[in-house]
Amino acid sequence: MNPEPFQQLDRVIHEKGRLAIMSLLAANDRLPFKEIRDTLGMTDGNVTAHLRTLHDSGYVAVTKEIEGGRSVTSYTLTRAGRKAFTDYLGFLEQVLNQSRQRLG
Amino acid sequence: MNPEPFQQLDRVIHEKGRLAIMSLLAANDRLPFKEIRDTLGMTDGNVTAHLRTLHDSGYVAVTKEIEGGRSVTSYTLTRAGRKAFTDYLGFLEQVLNQSRQRLG
Repeated sequence: MNPEPFQQLDRVIHEKGRLAIMSLLAANDRLPFKEIRDTLGMTDGNVTAHLRTLHDSGYVAVTKEIEGGRSVTSYTLTRAGRKAFTDYLGFLEQVLNQSRQRLG
Repeated sequence: MNPEPFQQLDRVIHEKGRLAIMSLLAANDRLPFKEIRDTLGMTDGNVTAHLRTLHDSGYVAVTKEIEGGRSVTSYTLTRAGRKAFTDYLGFLEQVLNQSRQRLG
């Protein structure tokens, strides 16, 4: 068994709530907070905490704008976030293949 | 996006240290503590904590025996652990495929 791909899994992305957010943002230019929350069925608190962690890691950019007099906050993957997510999925595939083989 | 496979990921298995232990045990009848620790390059404390969590969840059985006057502790997947790991890998594959598609 090669432990390397397991060790290389980025803990920031690996947490399953953040993994879902990264995956959701991967296909979209920019998503408002409410759409992330509703699509993933998470609580406000969870989404807020995970987005803060992803933002602090440089993986997600936050945009605030006024629309019709109301403040709207939206999120997008940064270039570093897209790179980190691509790398993560490569390691995850190795983990999956290795585990499948071992399970037999 | 379908959030279901993300939500279904078993947190007990998903933590990357425990994921490596489950994968290692999947291909072996039984492994002594030292072999798990050395193969995965983990500290005694980490391996102990993760094995305890897996044991408390019913996924790993522990065997103690005396060999040449010394106590040897070894670990094996339970039937429930093998089932949970198989299910987990199914959801992980869906997460991977969905994420790959979204990343484009």
